[in-house]
Amino acid sequence: MTALSPLAPAAFPTMPPLAGVRLASHACGIRYQGRTDLLLVEVDAGTSVAGVYTKSLTCSAPVDWCKTASAKGKGRVLVVNSGNANAFTGALGVASVERTAAKTAELFDCKKTEVYIASTGTIGVPLPDEKITAALADARAKLSADSWADAAAAIMTTDTFPKGSTRTATIDGVTVTINGIAKGAGMIAPDMATMLSFVFTDADLPHDVLQELLKKGTDRSFNAITVDSDTSTSDTLLLFATGKAGNARVTDAKDKRLADFRKKLFEVLLDLAHQVVKDGEGASKFVEITVTGAAGNKAAKTIALAIANSPLVKTAIAGEDANWGRVVMAVGKAGEKADRDRLCIKIGGVEVARNGQVVEGYDETPVTAHMKGQNIVIETDVGIGKGKATVWTCDLTHAYIDINGSYRT
Amino acid sequence: MTALSPLAPAAFPTMPPLAGVRLASHACGIRYQGRTDLLLVEVDAGTSVAGVYTKSLTCSAPVDWCKTASAKGKGRVLVVNSGNANAFTGALGVASVERTAAKTAELFDCKKTEVYIASTGTIGVPLPDEKITAALADARAKLSADSWADAAAAIMTTDTFPKGSTRTATIDGVTVTINGIAKGAGMIAPDMATMLSFVFTDADLPHDVLQELLKKGTDRSFNAITVDSDTSTSDTLLLFATGKAGNARVTDAKDKRLADFRKKLFEVLLDLAHQVVKDGEGASKFVEITVTGAAGNKAAKTIALAIANSPLVKTAIAGEDANWGRVVMAVGKAGEKADRDRLCIKIGGVEVARNGQVVEGYDETPVTAHMKGQNIVIETDVGIGKGKATVWTCDLTHAYIDINGSYRT
Repeated sequence: MTALSPLAPAAFPTMPPLAGVRLASHACGIRYQGRTDLLLVEVDAGTSVAGVYTKSLTCSAPVDWCKTASAKGKGRVLVVNSGNANAFTGALGVASVERTAAKTAELFDCKKTEVYIASTGTIGVPLPDEKITAALADARAKLSADSWADAAAAIMTTDTFPKGSTRTATIDGVTVTINGIAKGAGMIAPDMATMLSFVFTDADLPHDVLQELLKKGTDRSFNAITVDSDTSTSDTLLLFATGKAGNARVTDAKDKRLADFRKKLFEVLLDLAHQVVKDGEGASKFVEITVTGAAGNKAAKTIALAIANSPLVKTAIAGEDANWGRVVMAVGKAGEKADRDRLCIKIGGVEVARNGQVVEGYDETPVTAHMKGQNIVIETDVGIGKGKATVWTCDLTHAYIDINGSYRT
Repeated sequence: MTALSPLAPAAFPTMPPLAGVRLASHACGIRYQGRTDLLLVEVDAGTSVAGVYTKSLTCSAPVDWCKTASAKGKGRVLVVNSGNANAFTGALGVASVERTAAKTAELFDCKKTEVYIASTGTIGVPLPDEKITAALADARAKLSADSWADAAAAIMTTDTFPKGSTRTATIDGVTVTINGIAKGAGMIAPDMATMLSFVFTDADLPHDVLQELLKKGTDRSFNAITVDSDTSTSDTLLLFATGKAGNARVTDAKDKRLADFRKKLFEVLLDLAHQVVKDGEGASKFVEITVTGAAGNKAAKTIALAIANSPLVKTAIAGEDANWGRVVMAVGKAGEKADRDRLCIKIGGVEVARNGQVVEGYDETPVTAHMKGQNIVIETDVGIGKGKATVWTCDLTHAYIDINGSYRT
């Protein structure tokens, strides 16, 4: 067992019931003993669904399944197991997903394409799906509107804390609620893969609107975090809208009536993404990296991720070393335009380098004090244009090696 | 001081004198005490030079200088210092290189553009070039043809062993010699940057031919290795040809008379590149990764580097864990075409996965035995085309964190 992350929040948030959503957790013994490993969520008929997935070209069978289902945009049931990712399991994996969807659809009297399936855990081991399907009826009997904390715990693998977030928003005067849960950053030992997140709202919004909002929100949250640059074969983010809040249906994602909903949805996504980073393997520091002055926003993000993924930057942060030379190095390797002789770097708000060289009379004292804290802020202006991006990561510590290099000798 | 790498060769090779090349090492106290930190090499008039450099967009002033000089293709003197990289030093850095080149040209009665300058060490600290120029005359007095081991030692920063390689080749019946030295993989703590390598031959070959051969050889050697994916601001590889061997001048790099020279030059480059990996920070295993079946050779190299740079693959190797699921993950994140359901993986020559799933009756015993060795071989066929590439890396260990995260607390 891994110790609780020092960056863990004080408590799981109080998540209100959400009209049209019922959850159940169950222990079906796929890999773990003495804990829940199955999450079942039933949503009311008429629920719209949107999805964003891993960009991996070797993605898992459940990801392929959900991509097809969410393109249709409707949902009734979500089935998630932890302990086995059903990834790199070839034809066996595809058959396993098919069977699980068919049995679930039968039990809930819905279409197979209204069933969403996600798996997280060991790669390359056939999933004993019969354990899941055998448990479905028992799990169904436990469905309740109040099980958010249990739901977040059931999908954990080597996460050290359950992750949840909630907000309320108004759409055209009607109050709606957004509840989200998530698990596990990066690829988690041993053999573990996957970031999963499931977000639910009682708002009444069509698939196209949800999909556009989810994609935009993901770019600034889950797609702006990195633990170790490694990409899971199973990353899945689903957004379900039950429509029970009774708001007027809005059919354009850019409609001003969605401004508050958009803001709050993005807050939930970012909160969950930050929690994922804070539970990154071995994380002892939470790091915010902002790049300004790039050729465009995309270039800024590429540079910011090059800094965030640099093992040398990450080890320096772990060592509480204000090593701005490594930030320069990472800017240089990103492959996006940067003016070496106009580069400026701030650490903890203190200017360290300006116009390509260390500031005159540089006093490291306040910067070193900042590096000793848990929240590290690095800002870099690359002196080219107006592009801007912020990403978040954690440091690279001995604990990362311990967790991921299961020393057998 | 860091302990000698467990992957270090038994001894520095015996390097023969090379007609037209004289070397001297000197201690001028730039940063280190009690060791040499200046390498001076004089080559005969008429020497051709080729260069390959870091792709970093924040490269150092010495790199900019050498790029301009090697484009002209002639050389007389090489000046290398360790302890300070003269990188991210702005206008001060440029002036420093200018001064060093001018004083050297004056002393050796040559053009400034025939002087090559390389610096390795701390980033962001102005280089006290007066210490170098003050030492030039003394160093010059020590020039000799037999100082290869001392030369390799003078350019070290946190390298744990000096790196040299030598071969003889024939060009049209005439024997020529190739001697090369190199230093330091990746970015080396604290604040250290740079891979430097200097290769010399007495062959008579024009700049254009040298440049083409060097570029091709680099693609398969120095540009096919990685320690931690971080790119130095100072990487410099120079090839000097004095022309003293008396071979007939060949003016086409593809000329068959150069077949043996090309082969031996590539061997020297690969030998040096391998030594750099074997001295990678904290390295305990030398890892060869071959990708076949990619859409093209370039795609194969991208996939191979994605595997080689994956922190999860590298920590698994450190842990002697035959974790092929992480290889699949890395293939998937590379962004190049791969057929998940035709993917095959061999570790230590043993087939582990075939057609996208673990082989039937997989016996981990021989694979585990292989993982316990110092030389790890991973082969992956991605099932698309005929593209092929091999790259080399080392594992990611606790020692890497120790070296790079200079824990101050």
